[in-house]
Amino acid sequence: MSTKPVHRVRHTLLLGALLAILPAAALSAGPDAWIDAYREPASRLVGAALADRFAWHRIAEVTDTFGPRLSGTPALDAAIEWALATMKADGLENVRAEPVMVPRWVRGRESLHVVAPFPRPLVMLGLGGSVGTPADGLEADAIVVSSFDELHQRAADVRGRIVVFDVPYTTYGETVRYRGSGASRAAALGAAAALIRSVGPMGLRTPHTGGLQYAPDAPTIPAAAVSAEDAAALHRLQSRGVRLRLKLTMEARTLPDVDSANVVGEIVGRERPHEIVALGCHYDSWDVGTGASDDAGGCIVTWEAVRLMKRLGLRPRRTVRVVLFTNEENGLRGGLGYRDRHRDQLANHVLMLESDIGLFDLQGFGFTGSDEARTVVNTVASLLNGIGLDRVLPSGGGADIGPSVEAGGIASMSLNSGGDYFLVHHTPADTVDRIDPFNVSRAVGAVAVMAYVIADLPERLGEVAGPSNGR
Amino acid sequence: MSTKPVHRVRHTLLLGALLAILPAAALSAGPDAWIDAYREPASRLVGAALADRFAWHRIAEVTDTFGPRLSGTPALDAAIEWALATMKADGLENVRAEPVMVPRWVRGRESLHVVAPFPRPLVMLGLGGSVGTPADGLEADAIVVSSFDELHQRAADVRGRIVVFDVPYTTYGETVRYRGSGASRAAALGAAAALIRSVGPMGLRTPHTGGLQYAPDAPTIPAAAVSAEDAAALHRLQSRGVRLRLKLTMEARTLPDVDSANVVGEIVGRERPHEIVALGCHYDSWDVGTGASDDAGGCIVTWEAVRLMKRLGLRPRRTVRVVLFTNEENGLRGGLGYRDRHRDQLANHVLMLESDIGLFDLQGFGFTGSDEARTVVNTVASLLNGIGLDRVLPSGGGADIGPSVEAGGIASMSLNSGGDYFLVHHTPADTVDRIDPFNVSRAVGAVAVMAYVIADLPERLGEVAGPSNGR
Repeated sequence: MSTKPVHRVRHTLLLGALLAILPAAALSAGPDAWIDAYREPASRLVGAALADRFAWHRIAEVTDTFGPRLSGTPALDAAIEWALATMKADGLENVRAEPVMVPRWVRGRESLHVVAPFPRPLVMLGLGGSVGTPADGLEADAIVVSSFDELHQRAADVRGRIVVFDVPYTTYGETVRYRGSGASRAAALGAAAALIRSVGPMGLRTPHTGGLQYAPDAPTIPAAAVSAEDAAALHRLQSRGVRLRLKLTMEARTLPDVDSANVVGEIVGRERPHEIVALGCHYDSWDVGTGASDDAGGCIVTWEAVRLMKRLGLRPRRTVRVVLFTNEENGLRGGLGYRDRHRDQLANHVLMLESDIGLFDLQGFGFTGSDEARTVVNTVASLLNGIGLDRVLPSGGGADIGPSVEAGGIASMSLNSGGDYFLVHHTPADTVDRIDPFNVSRAVGAVAVMAYVIADLPERLGEVAGPSNGR
Repeated sequence: MSTKPVHRVRHTLLLGALLAILPAAALSAGPDAWIDAYREPASRLVGAALADRFAWHRIAEVTDTFGPRLSGTPALDAAIEWALATMKADGLENVRAEPVMVPRWVRGRESLHVVAPFPRPLVMLGLGGSVGTPADGLEADAIVVSSFDELHQRAADVRGRIVVFDVPYTTYGETVRYRGSGASRAAALGAAAALIRSVGPMGLRTPHTGGLQYAPDAPTIPAAAVSAEDAAALHRLQSRGVRLRLKLTMEARTLPDVDSANVVGEIVGRERPHEIVALGCHYDSWDVGTGASDDAGGCIVTWEAVRLMKRLGLRPRRTVRVVLFTNEENGLRGGLGYRDRHRDQLANHVLMLESDIGLFDLQGFGFTGSDEARTVVNTVASLLNGIGLDRVLPSGGGADIGPSVEAGGIASMSLNSGGDYFLVHHTPADTVDRIDPFNVSRAVGAVAVMAYVIADLPERLGEVAGPSNGR
């Protein structure tokens, strides 16, 4: 496996010639001088990305037209058909649907009411994958706890109760444990149902849905998210010594698996078409919102990167492939299916990049790979200094590319973002309105440049050295 | 009617004696020196208000326990019973319910769906007072307009349609016209239903309810609010030439009037008990949220002002009365009923103050009254400089006190606030969590000092001179 691209040497040798034809300010004479040859295509890609708001309007078009795109729904099927037709119209190559079977979870009607101290409805969202309640609902006294520790301290009070986890949001990774395993941990102690404080910063009494995972050794009980405000209010009532009685009604159920598909489009490499830089996102969303940031935005950004290469006539040495994965939210079947379908090709994947953490406060890229590859990636990223996206953070990846990256030992990258992502994540408020078109364009430019250059390097990007490479 | 309180002169004469017993820094030798006698009670009231978070916890208790308090609901009835009992326990005097009849509007189930281009639910809230749709809903093509002007320009396209008013929020006064009269103006052109973009800054796909007023000369059609995001999305779809078809289903209906009551408590004046400084708020809320800012907060603040006087043994010359008005949101029957019941007493109302625009970014007071009264109010407000609430803005009043102020020519005041009030106004997100306890305490201190001093002035506050006084 190469450690430094051979073309560095070549480009150094060519430096005199390049100096004659390129503006001096664009060139560096150091070991990274090879990058200078990419300044012109990078500038064209960034310029095209920033020339208009095409990408933002396309996110709007997908989300306005099809709305929520939960796996197995007619809306996702129609959105997939539209993507296939539109990618073809864009001139992408080898556009195809790669079928996978996906779970079909149905929310149905759902409600949560305070029965005592005084009857009223609360806002709630059932958790994806939850079972339903009996048809006439499930009424029980509630117990509010702040942590798994407190749950176990009060284990004797849990049986037959609705457990409310009022766990204030810290980070997604820390807090999402309650969404994932809260139901089963409460059920193991005899709870009748579980409610979790939504995993996200406090919004406007905004519940956040998301998937749960039932443990195999605990009863499956219904589970839903309540808003931060309602969790806190229930907690205050309990602290005043008020008896708290709730009624939860959920029709949620899981139907047999149905057909779905990943959408794939490419620009085929001019010299090494079998080597692939894959750009990914997920095209499905939860059922409660239009999933503009999670993850229609990531899909349009990665798709746009390929569309702009095609439009500008920039065909790199290797193939650049965009994959709109299906079923990230409640099954990951798209990511698993891609791995299985392309298992023989994984060794030819030079890099996989995923965009699935929003387009708010763009942070640059995260990257996981060998030190040598990181050096190259850092140099490529320097081309993005002008749009403020030249940082390469320690760790990159994504849920959809994860199975392939793991199985193939593939270098992986994420487009990183902070800001309001977890404020709107898995809520009805995940709309295109709050995404800044300028950020979308910057993201497109950044992904296009990164993908183009990595796909065009004369020698392939250093592969991951192995399990000890710090991932 | 006096223009300057006689006690100013008295206090000037006493200045030498006062200087001997009070810290010099607390005194002013100018024409406002009379206020120095109030520094000590003002300091006690502010100190008591800021000593703890009692008031905030009481807002939490009301809103946590009873939830939404729409006129005519058991929740409002129970909250009224609680207020009566709690005011008595607080030691307020002449605690009583003053009955009024109130409208009983029932929302019922409601939903709004996009039928085309692709079926999906939208978030919505029917407008208070709206009629319902047929039981199986009302399906029609939609037309989106940005203004009443555009509605009339496109009058030929309105018949049989659902009119969507996508009017971006500017100020409440400007934008609320569409909520109030949009339905009737669309109906006059033959519209089947009306949807308005919610009146408030963009939240998190948060619809805002609120009352509408049907014009007597137009058909009554159902009307609802959609979120800013959905209004914009529908507008974008229309601008792409997409046929937009919606289905609105609302069970909304108005039942016969039912009993309700204003809750009144007092501290009876020690010298002129028949003269009244009345502090008001409204205790009802819309049905969709707990109405913490609109207006449980105002009720607790004004109630607290009286409770603290009582607790500190500060009984002013005149009576201070707190009135928790019923039915501000959808009828104003509390305010109208107070005027009618107390018509003979209105001339004895020295001042009416209302707190009903939140407790977020406190701005001081608004005041409407004679110039002479304003001079006195400004001087009283100077006592609040230390808590940053010494501004007196040009105009004061409130919906509930409005009928009495109008009928009695009474000086009127509001506790003013900016900030997030209209972000959460009439939404499920109007919760206590986002109210800063420190602001609640400051508001209590400010209202207590203002009410106490005005009620204690040796000579009554200058009355409104008449219709030409600039109100």
